[in-house]
Amino acid sequence: MGIAERVTSGDIRAVARLIRDIDDKVPGAREVLKDLYPSTGRAYVVGITGAPGVGKSTLVDQMVTHLRKAGKTVGVLAVDPTSPFSGGAILGDRVRMQRHSMDEGVFIRSMATRGYFGGLTQSTRSAIDVLDAMGKDYVIVETVGVGQDEVDIVQSAHTTIIMLIPGMGDDIQALKAGILEVGDIFVINKADREGADRTVSDIRLMIEMDEKRYRNGWKPPILTAQAVSDIGIEEILDEIEKHHKYLTSSPRRQSRVMYEKARNDLVEMIKDRIVHEVLEDIIHSGEFEEVLQLIVERKIDPYTACDTIVSTRLRSGSK
Amino acid sequence: MGIAERVTSGDIRAVARLIRDIDDKVPGAREVLKDLYPSTGRAYVVGITGAPGVGKSTLVDQMVTHLRKAGKTVGVLAVDPTSPFSGGAILGDRVRMQRHSMDEGVFIRSMATRGYFGGLTQSTRSAIDVLDAMGKDYVIVETVGVGQDEVDIVQSAHTTIIMLIPGMGDDIQALKAGILEVGDIFVINKADREGADRTVSDIRLMIEMDEKRYRNGWKPPILTAQAVSDIGIEEILDEIEKHHKYLTSSPRRQSRVMYEKARNDLVEMIKDRIVHEVLEDIIHSGEFEEVLQLIVERKIDPYTACDTIVSTRLRSGSK
Repeated sequence: MGIAERVTSGDIRAVARLIRDIDDKVPGAREVLKDLYPSTGRAYVVGITGAPGVGKSTLVDQMVTHLRKAGKTVGVLAVDPTSPFSGGAILGDRVRMQRHSMDEGVFIRSMATRGYFGGLTQSTRSAIDVLDAMGKDYVIVETVGVGQDEVDIVQSAHTTIIMLIPGMGDDIQALKAGILEVGDIFVINKADREGADRTVSDIRLMIEMDEKRYRNGWKPPILTAQAVSDIGIEEILDEIEKHHKYLTSSPRRQSRVMYEKARNDLVEMIKDRIVHEVLEDIIHSGEFEEVLQLIVERKIDPYTACDTIVSTRLRSGSK
Repeated sequence: MGIAERVTSGDIRAVARLIRDIDDKVPGAREVLKDLYPSTGRAYVVGITGAPGVGKSTLVDQMVTHLRKAGKTVGVLAVDPTSPFSGGAILGDRVRMQRHSMDEGVFIRSMATRGYFGGLTQSTRSAIDVLDAMGKDYVIVETVGVGQDEVDIVQSAHTTIIMLIPGMGDDIQALKAGILEVGDIFVINKADREGADRTVSDIRLMIEMDEKRYRNGWKPPILTAQAVSDIGIEEILDEIEKHHKYLTSSPRRQSRVMYEKARNDLVEMIKDRIVHEVLEDIIHSGEFEEVLQLIVERKIDPYTACDTIVSTRLRSGSK
C-alpha cells in the first residue's frame, strides 16, 4: 500500500512519518501531499492563539475531551514553543496531555522546525491537509499569539479563537496591531481572576470600533472560561458550530471564504517554495562565499552583492 | 545635494524620508543605500527584546537619556506594536517619549509595515544602516520578543538584551525555544516585584545548562533594574560596553563576528529580494488567478499548481 493510501486509511505511523518528512522538507513528501489532496477538504479547522500562559493547551485538552464524548475525531497541531503538546512546557502539563495518547480518535503532533528557510507556516498547512486526509473531523491548531507567522498560521483555520486572560492591558494593545481582525471568537480564560469584566468590555469596545466586522455579518462573541476547571468549554464549542453554520449558510459566502483561503494558502506555498529552492541553491554556491568575503572586506556593498546573486537566478522575464 | 549626502550630513528630513521609502520598498531607496554603505559600520547596535509589558520602551527611554548625558548620539528603531515609539501603546507612555523629540542628538523611528511580502527584518536592517550612516553613535532596536522575525532582527545587533519581569514562568519556557541563545545580557525589570530572585536564578540555571556559551567566552550577565525609577540603567550600559570590548578585544573574534553578521544580513537580504520580486510578479499575473480558480474548483491540487507557477519563474539551473 502506498503512503497516501496508508494515511487515508488512518495508519498512525504513516501519518507521523509523513508530517515529520514535511517538517524536514523531504522531497518525496510533496508528491504524497499531491496524492492526498483529493481526500482533503472535509475536516473543520479551528485555530487557537494567545500569549504564553493564557491556557491554550488546557483549553485544547478540554475541547478534545468534549469532542471525543460527542463522537468526533480530532487532530491537534501545536506550533507553540510553550505548549505541552510540543514538549515545551512544564512537566505537569505534559503529563496531563497524555490522557489522550491512548485514544485512537485523537492525533497530536507538534510542529517545531525553524531553520534558515523558515517554512513553519507552510509545513503546518500541509500537516493540516494530512490530518484532514486521515479523516479527522476536527483539526485544532494551537499557536502562540504574537508575530506575523502566527497570524499566517491561524488564517488557515475556518474558525479562529483568540484567548486572553484578565489584566492583560499591554497584550490587548498588541492584539490591536494585527491579530484582532483574525479573531472569530474571543475567550477570556481564567475568568475567576480579578479584572475579567474589564477585559471583556475592553475587547467588546475594540470589536465595536472595528466597523468592517459588522458589514461582514459575523460579530465575534466574547466568552469567559476556566479551562482548567472545565468551565465554559461547551459554550465555546457551540460558538464554533455557530460560526461554521454562518460560513456555510450562504453559497456565496462559502465560496468567498474558500477562495480567500485558497489564495492565502497558494501565496504562502509559493513564497515558501521560492525561498527554499533559490536560497538553498545560492547558499551552497561558491559565489555566495566569494561575495560574502568581499562584503566583509568592504570591497562591495551587500545591496549590490544581493542584486548580482539574485539576478543570475531568476529568468530575465521575472525582473 | 544628493539624498545620500543629505543623510550623511545628518539631515533629519532626508533620513525620515529614506526610511519611509525603505519601508515602502520604493525602488530608488535601494540605490541610496548602496551609496550610503561606505559611511556605515561605525554605529554600535543594541537590540532589546522581551514580551509585551516588560518595560522595553521605558528602558530604551532611560538609556537614551543616559547616553545623551555622556555626549553620545542615539538612533532608536521600534519594531514592536506595543511600543510607544511605534505609536502602539497607551497615551501616557507616548507623551513620556516625547521628551527626546526636541533633541537633535536623538532620532526615533518606528518600523511598522508588514504585508504579503514580509520584509520587516530586511527594512529594519536597512534602517539601521541609515542611522549608522547618519552618524549616530548608538542604534537601539526594540522588538517584541516572540517569534522568528524578532530573533532575526536582534541578530543584526552587536549586543542583544533580553528583558523579563518577575513571575514570567511560561515566558521563560518560551525563551528556551529559541531566543535565549541570542541574549548577550539579561535584564530582569520591575525587580521590586515579588519573585525577582527566583527569575534571576531560573535564568542563571538556563545559561549554565547551555554549555556552548562557556566555550564562546562570554557568559551573559543577569542584571536587575527598575527602569521606570531610573534604577539599574548605568549597570546595563556598563555591561553593553564590556560586551563591546569583548567583541573587539581579539582580531580573530572580531572578524568572526563581522563575518557571521554579514552572512546573516546577506541571507536575509537575498530572501527578502527573491520573495518580493518573484512573488509580486506572480500574484499580478493572469496565470495566478487562473490557477487559483482551478484550485477552488478542486480541478488541480495546490502543490502541483505551485510547482507549475514557480518553475516557469526560475532559471532551469536553479531547480
